Amino acid sequence: MSETSTANIGVVGLAVMGSNLARNLASREGNTVAVYNRSPERTRLLTGEHPEAGFVASETIEDFVASLQKPRTAIIMVQAGRGTDAVIEALTALFEPGDIIVDGGNADFHDTIRREKAVSATGVNFVGAGISGGEEGALKGPSIMPGGSVEAYKTLGPILESIAAVVDGVPCVTHVGTDGAGHFVKMIHNGIEYADMQLIAEAYDLLRKVGGHSPAAIADVFTEWNSGDLESYLIEITAEVLRQVDAATGKPFVDIVLDEAGSKGTGVWTVQNALDLGVPVGGIAEAVFARAVSSHPEQRVPFRAIVDARPEIAVVGHTFQDDVRQALYASKVVAYAQGFDAIIAGAEKYGWNVDKGAIATIWRGGCIIRAQFLNRIVDAYANDPSIPTLLVDPYFAKAVADGEAAWRRIVSTAALSGIPVPGFASALSYFDSLASERLPAALVQGQRDFFGAHTYKRVDRPGTFHTLWSGDRSEVESAGSSH
Amino acid sequence: MSETSTANIGVVGLAVMGSNLARNLASREGNTVAVYNRSPERTRLLTGEHPEAGFVASETIEDFVASLQKPRTAIIMVQAGRGTDAVIEALTALFEPGDIIVDGGNADFHDTIRREKAVSATGVNFVGAGISGGEEGALKGPSIMPGGSVEAYKTLGPILESIAAVVDGVPCVTHVGTDGAGHFVKMIHNGIEYADMQLIAEAYDLLRKVGGHSPAAIADVFTEWNSGDLESYLIEITAEVLRQVDAATGKPFVDIVLDEAGSKGTGVWTVQNALDLGVPVGGIAEAVFARAVSSHPEQRVPFRAIVDARPEIAVVGHTFQDDVRQALYASKVVAYAQGFDAIIAGAEKYGWNVDKGAIATIWRGGCIIRAQFLNRIVDAYANDPSIPTLLVDPYFAKAVADGEAAWRRIVSTAALSGIPVPGFASALSYFDSLASERLPAALVQGQRDFFGAHTYKRVDRPGTFHTLWSGDRSEVESAGSSH
Repeated sequence: MSETSTANIGVVGLAVMGSNLARNLASREGNTVAVYNRSPERTRLLTGEHPEAGFVASETIEDFVASLQKPRTAIIMVQAGRGTDAVIEALTALFEPGDIIVDGGNADFHDTIRREKAVSATGVNFVGAGISGGEEGALKGPSIMPGGSVEAYKTLGPILESIAAVVDGVPCVTHVGTDGAGHFVKMIHNGIEYADMQLIAEAYDLLRKVGGHSPAAIADVFTEWNSGDLESYLIEITAEVLRQVDAATGKPFVDIVLDEAGSKGTGVWTVQNALDLGVPVGGIAEAVFARAVSSHPEQRVPFRAIVDARPEIAVVGHTFQDDVRQALYASKVVAYAQGFDAIIAGAEKYGWNVDKGAIATIWRGGCIIRAQFLNRIVDAYANDPSIPTLLVDPYFAKAVADGEAAWRRIVSTAALSGIPVPGFASALSYFDSLASERLPAALVQGQRDFFGAHTYKRVDRPGTFHTLWSGDRSEVESAGSSH
Repeated sequence: MSETSTANIGVVGLAVMGSNLARNLASREGNTVAVYNRSPERTRLLTGEHPEAGFVASETIEDFVASLQKPRTAIIMVQAGRGTDAVIEALTALFEPGDIIVDGGNADFHDTIRREKAVSATGVNFVGAGISGGEEGALKGPSIMPGGSVEAYKTLGPILESIAAVVDGVPCVTHVGTDGAGHFVKMIHNGIEYADMQLIAEAYDLLRKVGGHSPAAIADVFTEWNSGDLESYLIEITAEVLRQVDAATGKPFVDIVLDEAGSKGTGVWTVQNALDLGVPVGGIAEAVFARAVSSHPEQRVPFRAIVDARPEIAVVGHTFQDDVRQALYASKVVAYAQGFDAIIAGAEKYGWNVDKGAIATIWRGGCIIRAQFLNRIVDAYANDPSIPTLLVDPYFAKAVADGEAAWRRIVSTAALSGIPVPGFASALSYFDSLASERLPAALVQGQRDFFGAHTYKRVDRPGTFHTLWSGDRSEVESAGSSH
């Protein structure tokens, strides 16, 4: 190690997220931050604009590595995909056993599992860390979800704790589990974020189209809701967005925005992986689909042209607004319950020892879905870490029961009024499915046995059975599996 | 070619599907069928039980290949996965350029694309063919969806046409497109089948729990429906299943079947691939999730225990039964529209020239979703092959409009009554999303711009914009993409 090895942490990739994370690191006592970017212009821009950060800047990756104290620790903040692989390869070649490479990008957790295996074989530690909070979070305090080895976390943990958001004195970072666990949990976080946003959008749509309120009036409603159970960053910014007036036209901002919602892929990943795991995540799936539907004007425009006038908007009582709030809260509880189910199933499949309460704890600050609400999830898993679904936790069970009648009225009103509520309706059907003593899945099993001899199980005795549908329709016991 | 080369077609893999397909082939004039199975016991069993078929049986794959006339044509009917790869490898080594290997199993179409590329490089043709209809279809006439080269179809087509189901004189087989197109379309078929079955299950559940009818009475309802727009194999067998009485207990069969529905994976694949393609397939996804929910007794049982009494079942008028029928039909139209959207998107992504009308044509017979209804889809694409969604076809638009009021009443009643209708509700929300002039997706874009600077488009002028939310909240034009 030469005299130039003065930095205890380095950042590779200095686009907005990387620059902000580097500045965040540099602002904390005790950190000296090495920075490197493939094109040195960006490095010079950052160091020029922020001399107060005292960055140790390098123009080659060799110099960057040489500027790091041992064990060398570098956080990669480049676009997920091949760029990440190239940087990992370069660093792995220059690092020594015990050094730590952190991928802070939005990697697919399957890639993280693969990379961890390859890098750790050389003795270098590899940590895939989900970082949530956007640009502002990266600068002021994100929620951080690192995977990787326990050993690497000993060195890395204190550094990450120094830059993470803090809620009630607790930094929003925890060692999630080995290899891909951090990026997996970050993916689920984003899936829940999709559901949360869709549910809020449905609530807004109902208040606007059925309630007849203006965006500004609805902003006040959301602000009021933000002081209750629904308190959260997303509710807060929804009020801000709805209050905004477009300078060019004087119209409400939300009315001049094209109603085609984009997406970046983690919502899709969440649903695809939940499907692999056999976990029903209707709330997240409907949110992803709602964005997709909105982005197909080539279908929407001609369809509108041939659909007759929308149904009469139902007459609503003065409790309508509060009904919407309760439907939103109940649906949100379902979405989070489904998200945690996916985390539990992923942890089991990939062999991660994930502490559910710790995940809820680090999502309380820094990230997009931050909310007081997460304390209730922390409590639920503290009371009983083995509850089969968050919905049976006494607090959530009561919360949903309290709102159930309102929730039913809202889904009913929306159906009668022609307001799309895929999130509210899917969540209610999920609730009613769990609540049904008998599901028509029995009929589905009968159909499957009829056309494909897929067999079925009986309610009154063990075994697997098949009815001879094309024969005398008697029942035979089958050795086959029922799935 | 030796004197033993007497068979014009061969079948490898003689489990039930393979045996039945081989018997189907042998029963058609002009076919001599070679058969081979890894374990010769099964081959002897088949030839022993069916001497009338005149099978040319071989105990080694070399003899099997030698027994085939040129161009050699062999249909592989083994379990999807590694077994298929092993057989393909063995046949490719023994086959000559111009010969044809057909994979008739339920392969993932990505595997079919890979295999076609590898095999066709040797000059041997490779055809991935989806075969639907279960065991009975394989024996009596399935719906067949072959991909692969046009050249291979010249030889293979007449053979497949000889064994396929026939509707109105038209065999249920068509050259779907190159490489993986056949298995892709088979996958979508299965996804639609999931949606169809779930919607029927919801209709049954409503008639049972809200309508208060017995399974036998509901069987009569389905039989009656089977003479109208809903006429289909699945409605027909639903009546059969509901009419069945359990011999052991004297109870309705559907009541003694455990209500946990299994699945084999193609429903999951359909949703995962639709997500990749950006196509909203809520009807299929909710059907897959409904099966998953049903299969989690460890969640259902404790949840039921803490949920208070279900809501009072709503009082329903005498039109309830017909309302259910109309809701079922409208939801079914949506599910098929979504399925065909996925086919169109897949064809575009993978470069297949898929004839949508031809697909609907070959699904009229042989397969599980066979129905008169498919003729309406054939008509729709004949009228206008470029319609952006089946829902704007005049027939379907009218069909859904006619049932719309009933559909809304049913989703509303289900919500108020505590009956899970994830399929009906998702389809209605999809309909209402397409029908909405403005969607709350505009709010979602505002939120995304607020927390992630994801930008938005305006309704009143081109360009991509960002509001400086953390600054003075003025709007700036952005060079970035909006997605």
